[in-house]
Amino acid sequence: MEVAPRPPATPASPTVITARELARHLGVSQSMVSRAFSPGASIAPEMRARVLRAAEELGYRPNVIAAALSRRRSSIVAIVMAELTNPFYPAVLEQLTEALQAAGLQSLLFTVPPGQPADSCLPLLRQYHVDAVVITSASLSSAGAAEWLGDGRAAVLFNRTAAGPTALDSVACDNLAGGRAAAEALLAQGRRRLAFVAGRADTSTSQDRERGFRAALAERGLPPPLRVEAGDFSYEAGHRAALALTGEADGIFFANDILALGGLDALRHESGLRVPADVAVIGFDDIPMAAWPAYRLTTLRQPVPAMVARAVELLQARLGGTAGPPRGERLPAELVARQSL
Amino acid sequence: MEVAPRPPATPASPTVITARELARHLGVSQSMVSRAFSPGASIAPEMRARVLRAAEELGYRPNVIAAALSRRRSSIVAIVMAELTNPFYPAVLEQLTEALQAAGLQSLLFTVPPGQPADSCLPLLRQYHVDAVVITSASLSSAGAAEWLGDGRAAVLFNRTAAGPTALDSVACDNLAGGRAAAEALLAQGRRRLAFVAGRADTSTSQDRERGFRAALAERGLPPPLRVEAGDFSYEAGHRAALALTGEADGIFFANDILALGGLDALRHESGLRVPADVAVIGFDDIPMAAWPAYRLTTLRQPVPAMVARAVELLQARLGGTAGPPRGERLPAELVARQSL
Repeated sequence: MEVAPRPPATPASPTVITARELARHLGVSQSMVSRAFSPGASIAPEMRARVLRAAEELGYRPNVIAAALSRRRSSIVAIVMAELTNPFYPAVLEQLTEALQAAGLQSLLFTVPPGQPADSCLPLLRQYHVDAVVITSASLSSAGAAEWLGDGRAAVLFNRTAAGPTALDSVACDNLAGGRAAAEALLAQGRRRLAFVAGRADTSTSQDRERGFRAALAERGLPPPLRVEAGDFSYEAGHRAALALTGEADGIFFANDILALGGLDALRHESGLRVPADVAVIGFDDIPMAAWPAYRLTTLRQPVPAMVARAVELLQARLGGTAGPPRGERLPAELVARQSL
Repeated sequence: MEVAPRPPATPASPTVITARELARHLGVSQSMVSRAFSPGASIAPEMRARVLRAAEELGYRPNVIAAALSRRRSSIVAIVMAELTNPFYPAVLEQLTEALQAAGLQSLLFTVPPGQPADSCLPLLRQYHVDAVVITSASLSSAGAAEWLGDGRAAVLFNRTAAGPTALDSVACDNLAGGRAAAEALLAQGRRRLAFVAGRADTSTSQDRERGFRAALAERGLPPPLRVEAGDFSYEAGHRAALALTGEADGIFFANDILALGGLDALRHESGLRVPADVAVIGFDDIPMAAWPAYRLTTLRQPVPAMVARAVELLQARLGGTAGPPRGERLPAELVARQSL
């Protein structure tokens, strides 16, 4: 269904030399020249440096776009991301970009407003001949997914899971088990008036964490938790939610850490409560600030390095045509006990 | 000097339709179809939606890469960034990406390790037909700059200034004046045993802030500040630097906020000092955490929205050929008084 590219005929510059001429000049194979210009390709660093130096001197420039057109591959992976101001995501972005670069892939970052599906980016991604997309902190409609994959491209949801049957691979933390672990940790400290602070209510992360939390209470015959909907995943939203719960709960599970930090500050500095003596707090993610002595937040740590590695493997398998049916990978969260509980 | 692209002849798929056919089908001009696919182009949202819907139904796909080849423009701006885990940069990245999208440009993010020049990215950027690069939290060698610009491309340094004479545009905060303001604020509170905590010593930000700070003291006949080199711009480095200064200083200027937050925690939680009673602290940037009640950090706020707007304007002028000699824009920082001083 792709339009065959028909670039206008452009007269070649007289200084242009070909890959074959460069290879002959260096006394190496043409495939060696090609590998020198392919990020991640197997070639000795000294040889790569030698080829690149000679290319620079002789005015040789490989044309990856022409290469992309012939292979129908651009080696670009788009990362679609919202919520960059939640400190969880810059860390994900950094690790994901590095892992993709190591795999010979470049990342093209697209940002979407929180709550907007990634669908709006797809026409542009097609224009840029992007083959693969990692969608994190955003969703993709079923129709968008079907059309994208129907063209032989790859997509992985990261830290999000698809609702219902889907053709999409996804990598996430086991949020259901994490929610259970949060309930168990609060109950083990004798807390009984529990509350859950939801983030953006339409996200699989908030939904699954809540479901696990409720299930653990229900199985013990305990009443369901109080519930406050913060509206989004931000410090300010957590701050507001905690004020609404002051005096109502003795243990609060926030859907993520940035909410919990706002909540901790509200409880301590505005409600004048002691944490954990008056109210225990637990978060989810383990962002760097959770460990800072002003917070010492007990939280469920997401295994980001393992999640990133798995996402890149799934993409590569999908692009290489070696992947089977779509996978929904769930990696376990780890309880990090600090002093808020 | 560019290699003329020679993609292989590819048979056109029978379902392919041209922009002209699509325009005729819709009863609009061909230029309307083109504008619908150009991000930022002037077109009514309803018309764009109508064109995109019809394009989807009829299997029309514009080929921006072919367009880029004919115009020799890719509409991609590379953002080269290090230090994504300093919360200042995700906010910059978010605002920069949005401003570029609004200007019809897509951003391609490249990360480099802190301290590594952006030069290592340039060969890849050329391969992707990238015309313009915004380099932030990283440097570019004079040789790299000369070669990049010599090919008719554009580059802007953001939050960095070039050392010595340069052909590069740059947009930064007036760090020299900001450093002076930090000294004046500490002196106005009666602090006399002052210290400066440097970040990465080879950055223009740390150097200029220190120079301004020293100049303000020297002009008043005061001794130079104590100096600790933190080594990088991180919470942990600020934490270590503050411990080294405990008992030595009654007023500390940290080269940026993330250093200052680590310093505040060390002074309060490890040295057992009161801030500001025993030691006053001032930072630089005004990252979100600076306003959190656990910190309430007095700091110099960088005017990020204005800096982003200026950087995009400079790039557009450079790409449009309407820019004059390179500009070094310096926007003023604003003192935000909180409770650490």
